[in-house]
Order: sequence, then structure tokens, then C-alpha cells
Amino acid sequence: MIDQTRLPQELVVLDIPDIPTLVAAIRRLSVRGAPAIGVAGAYGVALAVHLYGNTGPKLAEAISAVRSARPTAVNLAKMVDRTAARVSAGLEEVLAEADRIRDEELAASISMGEYGADLADELIGEAAARAMTICNTGGLAAVSRGTALAVIQTLHERGRLEMALPTETRPLLQGGRLTTWELGRMGAPFRLLVDGAAPFLLSRGEANLVLAGADRIAANGDVANKIGTFSLALASRHAGVPFIVVAPESTIDLETPTGADIDIEDRGAEEVTSLGGMEVALPGTDALNPAFDITPADFITAIVTDRRIIRPDRGESPQTVPRGELRTNQSDNPENV
Amino acid sequence: MIDQTRLPQELVVLDIPDIPTLVAAIRRLSVRGAPAIGVAGAYGVALAVHLYGNTGPKLAEAISAVRSARPTAVNLAKMVDRTAARVSAGLEEVLAEADRIRDEELAASISMGEYGADLADELIGEAAARAMTICNTGGLAAVSRGTALAVIQTLHERGRLEMALPTETRPLLQGGRLTTWELGRMGAPFRLLVDGAAPFLLSRGEANLVLAGADRIAANGDVANKIGTFSLALASRHAGVPFIVVAPESTIDLETPTGADIDIEDRGAEEVTSLGGMEVALPGTDALNPAFDITPADFITAIVTDRRIIRPDRGESPQTVPRGELRTNQSDNPENV
Repeated sequence: MIDQTRLPQELVVLDIPDIPTLVAAIRRLSVRGAPAIGVAGAYGVALAVHLYGNTGPKLAEAISAVRSARPTAVNLAKMVDRTAARVSAGLEEVLAEADRIRDEELAASISMGEYGADLADELIGEAAARAMTICNTGGLAAVSRGTALAVIQTLHERGRLEMALPTETRPLLQGGRLTTWELGRMGAPFRLLVDGAAPFLLSRGEANLVLAGADRIAANGDVANKIGTFSLALASRHAGVPFIVVAPESTIDLETPTGADIDIEDRGAEEVTSLGGMEVALPGTDALNPAFDITPADFITAIVTDRRIIRPDRGESPQTVPRGELRTNQSDNPENV
Repeated sequence: MIDQTRLPQELVVLDIPDIPTLVAAIRRLSVRGAPAIGVAGAYGVALAVHLYGNTGPKLAEAISAVRSARPTAVNLAKMVDRTAARVSAGLEEVLAEADRIRDEELAASISMGEYGADLADELIGEAAARAMTICNTGGLAAVSRGTALAVIQTLHERGRLEMALPTETRPLLQGGRLTTWELGRMGAPFRLLVDGAAPFLLSRGEANLVLAGADRIAANGDVANKIGTFSLALASRHAGVPFIVVAPESTIDLETPTGADIDIEDRGAEEVTSLGGMEVALPGTDALNPAFDITPADFITAIVTDRRIIRPDRGESPQTVPRGELRTNQSDNPENV
């Protein structure tokens, strides 16, 4: 498991010999991104069975500790439960289930990349892609190729990417720290932007495509994602540039009617007022620090999942478009996972 | 002279005993902001006369060194020339001219604050002001009360300010480092925002007023200002929130027909990829780093100067509105300069 808190300065692969080490790694965000946490939790159950056998209070305690390491990560509990259901069948079956979860994430990433790159081709025509993106949505967050960054990777593998333009994504700088690292690894051309520059650069034609991930997608197509996404979507609409949300099916929540039904967490002042231990504001400064924002469906050209393309710009929503098939075209250099 | 590079960690007042110290302070941005640099240059000429007498090659060399300390700062050359024209009259006359320049900046700041606060009252009615702002436009940049921040200060002195919402303004964080410090000093309530959050917070009604400075204002009312201003203006228009530009008359450049005639400097990658010496991106990362952006006149509600209010939202431009009088209402606590 790559320690994401050490990037881009160091590539540290964590050794996880026991359950407390795994729980601590999840807690301190060494592993982040819903799919990556889910897979880490699944292998955590396998590790627990390896250490404590397939029954007894120690096993139950270990599984419970992994399951609750990050309470807001729905995917963690879901994948721990799915793997834990195989415990009575023994370690090999548990490991096989964890492998399946990992393989499903990989297949979903490949599929999102294929659907998204095809759609990009349709939307921008002959031009090579100059693709702006926000936060980190690549393999670090998703085990395999990721979501929005999977589309950029597929475009790059197809020779269709002229330039990736990640925004640094304050306060936590996931775009600056993690996305540049992933783009560097895939050999894609890229230039970093401060968040405040992106809307202006869109108005000047620097990008012909904007790709974002999603934390949750409401039934009407409103999208909750990292703070700054709204700003990019508004500017995309002003500039006439397609704005595409890329996320797995599991992100769509039909129980949430609209974005107005999603609560927005304020993560407090410290993330804003300090940076790597350095104070960047008057001591004692308070901040308004919403962790994510809501982009209304009518700013969104398309929502791409692993099984369908939904076009809010044509009046479609997650409720009106049926799921289709996974796309698992293996011609796209799948070894880079 | 306050060393702006040390804020907000330390309040260091620089002792300037000689010309090389002054030139170095201007060069390393210890003093920044057009009016502040102009006044520093004017007193620099007085210092040169004090050190070298009012004639001779040493004096000429010193004045030339001050004048060219920051070549892009038009105000520096202008104020050095104005003071240097008094050299033959002796040190006292030179000092008197430098004092006049300082007093004119103070009067202009008071006037902008008065005009701007009156306009704010007219635009937001009974509500207290929740004023978003960008970069640093206060006394640090302008000797006295500043431009956009002078309006916020005047609103605060009138009891009309509920909350100031400065954006941190990456890459150089002038909002986070300097504006929080100035708001703290004036005792105004404020909360800091990351740049990417501001457009969304505008759409949610967190602010009822946006105030920005200007680097240059074209004849048609297009405004060049710190990168991120365009994004705020676009979001203000979307949210129906008044967007007000505050700048001295000297910022209006009738020789520049529109914003399209203004070249935008790219300041290179390092400001974006490192922060206080810390790497915040993959080593070797390139960046697109425009230092400022152009906000079209049709996004701007009003341009407030020390001598007039221009309303682009009513079809007015700097060419159509005559200059009026300075406002120098001294009832507004002028000792805090």
C-alpha cells in the first residue's frame, strides 16, 4: 500500500503486518479514496483471518476495528461486510473475495476510461484533448486507474491527450501532490494550475474538456464533489467547454433526490490556515472550509459511470438512463494498474 | 516600513539607512502595492539628498537605482520623478513633496472608502455587509487605508460590516498572509476562504458584496487584477451579488481600449509548485501561472475610484463618467493609517 501522505516527496510502500497498523494507516489518510479504502478493508479481513483464525472474539474485534477505521467511508463498511461473510469458508475464500473486489474496481476503472474517452472524442472532435481536472481521482484513490484520471489515462494511451491541466485543489493539495505524481508515472504531459486561475484559463480556451470525480450523485444528477468543482463547472458553462463527471455506479444515490439534500461538512480552520506545519494566516484566523460543494445538474454535460453515460445537457438523469454493460477493452495497456 | 515578507508571523519594521537597503527591500517585495512603492520611492529620493547632497553623480546614481528597483511598477518611476524634480530646492522641499505624495494617497484611500461604503449601502440596503475580497488591498499595499480593503474598513467603522471573507489568493497567499493581518488590526470580523470555495459560497448566499482592487482598468471598463478575480466576478454575476472594483484614478488607463489589449505575465512554475520552501507537487512539475486575469466590464457592477463611481451595469465606462471631487470625510477615524 502506497503511503499517500508522503507523496510526492517520497514513494513509501507501507508494510501492514497487523490490524492496528492498517487501522492507523486508514485513519491518517495514508490510504484515501473510496475504492482504495474498500479494497484495503477487504484485505484487512483476510489479514485478520490469517492472524486469528476464522472464528472467535479476537477475529470479531479485528474486523470491527477495520470496519470502523473511517466511519464516513460507506465503501469501507460495505467491502468489509462482503469479505467477512466468507470468513467461515476459510482464509483462501476470504482472500479470493478480496481479490474479486480488487478486480471489480479495476474493471470498473477500465470501463469508465473507455466510456469517457469515447465521449470526449465525440464532444471535442478532431482536436487533441486539453483536459482540466480537480483533486486526485487516479489509481491512488481507486486501486487501479481511477475515475476522471482513468479517462485522461485512456486518452493518453490512445494518443489523444495534448495536455492535462490539474488544479492544485486547496486546502489539501491533492491535485498538486498526488495527481501530478500519477500523471508523471503515466508519462502524460501536464501543467499545474492554482485553483483561482482555472476559470479564467477556461474562458481563454486553454482547455477543451473538464473532468471531475464525484463523492455522491443525487437522483436528479446534482453532484457532490471536492470543493472547487462548482467553480470549474460554472466556468465551463460560461466558456462552452464540456464538463464531465466520472464516477462508479456505486456513487449514484437514488435515495438523495437533489443536491439540496446533501449536507456539507465544514472541516475547520486549520487545513486552511496552515500548510505542512507552516502558518499561512494571522494566528487565530477562523475559516469557512466546506470540504465539498454541489454542482447542479444543469452545469453538467455528462455523467460517465462504468456502465452508462448520462447526459444532463439533454435532460437525462440517473433515473432516466438504464445501466448498460461494463466496457473492458483490454487493448489499452492494462498492465499499468 | 513594514517588512511584508515576514507577515503574519512577525511584525518587523525595517530600518532603511541607505539606498542599497531600500532597493533590496523593494526588490524582494518587502514593500509591495503600487501606492506603497511610490511613496517608498519618494522618501528614497529624500534619503538620497540627505546622504549625498542635492547635486552630483552620487545623487544621480542613487535616484536612478531607486527608480529602477522594480521596472514594472509605473508608480515608482512616476513618484521618484516627481520628488526628484524638487531636488535643486533642497532637502526640506524634497521631504515636503514626499509628504504630499503620502498625504494624497491617504486622502485617496479615505475617499475610496467613503464612496465605496455609500455605494454598498445603496446596493445591499438594510442588510449588514458580508464582503468577500481577494488579494491584499489594504494599507500595506497603499501606505494608508488601501482600496477594496478601505471600503471594508469604512463599513466596519460605520458598524455596517457583519463579516469580511478574504480569499487566500494562491499562489502568493496575499489574502491569507496580509489581509487577515490587516483585518485583525482593524478589529473586523473575518473568516478566510480557499480560492476554490469562494464561487460556491457566493452561490449559497454567504456574501452579499464582492470587493476587488485593480492593477489596470481599460477604457471600456475591463479590469486587470490578481488571478482569481475573474472567477469571483463570474460567480458574483451568477449569484446576483454586486461586484465592485475599487482603485485610484491613476489605475484607469484610457490608452488601453479593452482588456484584450493587456498582456498577461506568466510568473513560472516555482510559485505554484513550492510554498515557503516546501515542495507541493511532483519535482519538475511545470505550471501555467498567470499573475493576473481580465474581468470583462459586463461582470462588474461598479468601479469606485477616489473621485467617481462608474457603473458598467448601467452601461457606463471610464470614458463616459466625468471625475468628481475627493471625499475626505474625517469623521471616520482617520488616525488608523
